[in-house]
Amino acid sequence: MPEVFADRLLAAVESKGAAVCVGLDPMYEMLPDAVAGEPAARDPKNIEACIDAVLEFGTALLRVVAPLVPVVKLQSAWFEKYLWEGVETYYSLVQEAEELGLLVIGDVKRGDIGTTCAAYADGHLADPPFDELGSVVVPDAITVNPFCGLDTLGPFLNTARDYGKGLFVLVRTSNPGSAELQDAVLDDGRTWSEMLADRLAVLAEQQGLIGDSGFSSVGAVVGATQPHTMQSLRRRLPKSFFLLPGYGAQGATAEMTRAAFVNGQGALVSASRSVIYAHRDPRYSHLSDWKQAVQQAVIDMKADVNRVVSGG
Amino acid sequence: MPEVFADRLLAAVESKGAAVCVGLDPMYEMLPDAVAGEPAARDPKNIEACIDAVLEFGTALLRVVAPLVPVVKLQSAWFEKYLWEGVETYYSLVQEAEELGLLVIGDVKRGDIGTTCAAYADGHLADPPFDELGSVVVPDAITVNPFCGLDTLGPFLNTARDYGKGLFVLVRTSNPGSAELQDAVLDDGRTWSEMLADRLAVLAEQQGLIGDSGFSSVGAVVGATQPHTMQSLRRRLPKSFFLLPGYGAQGATAEMTRAAFVNGQGALVSASRSVIYAHRDPRYSHLSDWKQAVQQAVIDMKADVNRVVSGG
Repeated sequence: MPEVFADRLLAAVESKGAAVCVGLDPMYEMLPDAVAGEPAARDPKNIEACIDAVLEFGTALLRVVAPLVPVVKLQSAWFEKYLWEGVETYYSLVQEAEELGLLVIGDVKRGDIGTTCAAYADGHLADPPFDELGSVVVPDAITVNPFCGLDTLGPFLNTARDYGKGLFVLVRTSNPGSAELQDAVLDDGRTWSEMLADRLAVLAEQQGLIGDSGFSSVGAVVGATQPHTMQSLRRRLPKSFFLLPGYGAQGATAEMTRAAFVNGQGALVSASRSVIYAHRDPRYSHLSDWKQAVQQAVIDMKADVNRVVSGG
Repeated sequence: MPEVFADRLLAAVESKGAAVCVGLDPMYEMLPDAVAGEPAARDPKNIEACIDAVLEFGTALLRVVAPLVPVVKLQSAWFEKYLWEGVETYYSLVQEAEELGLLVIGDVKRGDIGTTCAAYADGHLADPPFDELGSVVVPDAITVNPFCGLDTLGPFLNTARDYGKGLFVLVRTSNPGSAELQDAVLDDGRTWSEMLADRLAVLAEQQGLIGDSGFSSVGAVVGATQPHTMQSLRRRLPKSFFLLPGYGAQGATAEMTRAAFVNGQGALVSASRSVIYAHRDPRYSHLSDWKQAVQQAVIDMKADVNRVVSGG
């Protein structure tokens, strides 16, 4: 059997000393001038120029963050915007990240009925079987949308078990309107997300998914912007790694994630725009090189998160 | 302004005399021998062979069904299984279908926070702006997953309005375990899906999304397998087209969809495996050509659905 993803993740977090994930959301309009040219000279209708810039930016970014953080998260949507050519670029950057020793989360948020999820698991999580694409690499873990029901997660769980991969199942998202559906109160007093968490916990404790560390390869996405529900969800999902998006650009602070950590373990604070576009942040505008700005933003974020992890 | 999608859909349904959608879920192992060879000779590790078979099957299938039905639905997962090469095939078949005069639903079930949904809307629903891919065509409508909250649907709604496109938002899915999360009972007595439907109805009635027909371009996915909730959801979403998957292979009958129709209008019964793999069905095994089997299965399904549509 392959090593359980949860153990690989825990080891990577410890080796980098950072419960931090950097999200790669490559928006052409936001890229540094050094990569994509002056704003006036950019042409969003030129797909080759867009993709070249995304690839150059992504490759350089991964090299900056690889020594500093254990995990990167690639947001599939910003690649799918460029159709199949963008999807090829996504897989190229997944491979680049893996070669740099990073763990990769594919932020694809796929979900469907069960037979269809088997196809998604094949394309996004299982090691590809194709002879002609021998070197193609897929993520170590993906985000999954459980709307259809927990029965539909079966193929993802099987793939995670068979290939030593991980899942981060949406439980409570970071966006401003997330409460509308996810905090709906049930007749038994739980919120809908709490009910989802209770049911997910059963799956997370299945054999083959719990590592030697006691953590499960079935993690949960819980917005760092949602501190009011963090403690309750942590209690309901004691074995799951929490992936906590929303730090920085979406307004969450490290302090807001405190309840997600158990003895300083079991959670990953994720930031995308606030880190990868740090060259636009007045705090880092004195740095002439966008890569230095990213590096400093990651170092600052690590220190911020480590204060919480260490119980400070 | 472009013509509203709901009006285009209604006209297409009337011109074909069929409130029917055929779903293209190309599973290599299920393809007819005439396309993919004898089962023993197939090699699922040969990506070129897989994709060639999927493309040949899809193209031939679209030609068989184009004279008979108004709409086809392409299931993205079965293309994503073949990575970026599969995604290119998906867009090829979308274009083929459009050229045959079919309306196309991209069954992508995307959903995320709002800024990310803008990228998904660009890649999957907006007409691509790229100079070099001048002829590339995207679907007329896509399926959308509202888990994150209705605020996140904004970019999809804007794209639908600006480009005359449509959305089918997941409300109540067809899979066996769908009740677990979707029929959860709230403290006000509604099910979670009913609450979602009530909120979605507000968006569906926005200006620019309601056609001359009175129908909205914001439709709903409601499993044909869920007759117990059909009447309630129809009442809550009076303007929305219902896309009803689950007919055939998943066990739903035309009769089970009766409450989705309003005066014979406003719903689309969708079948995938029971139609496209009709050559495996004993009812059609006397037909020597798989295309004849598909044709007969569509004709039979139309008659079955039309009995319900006509109030028989």
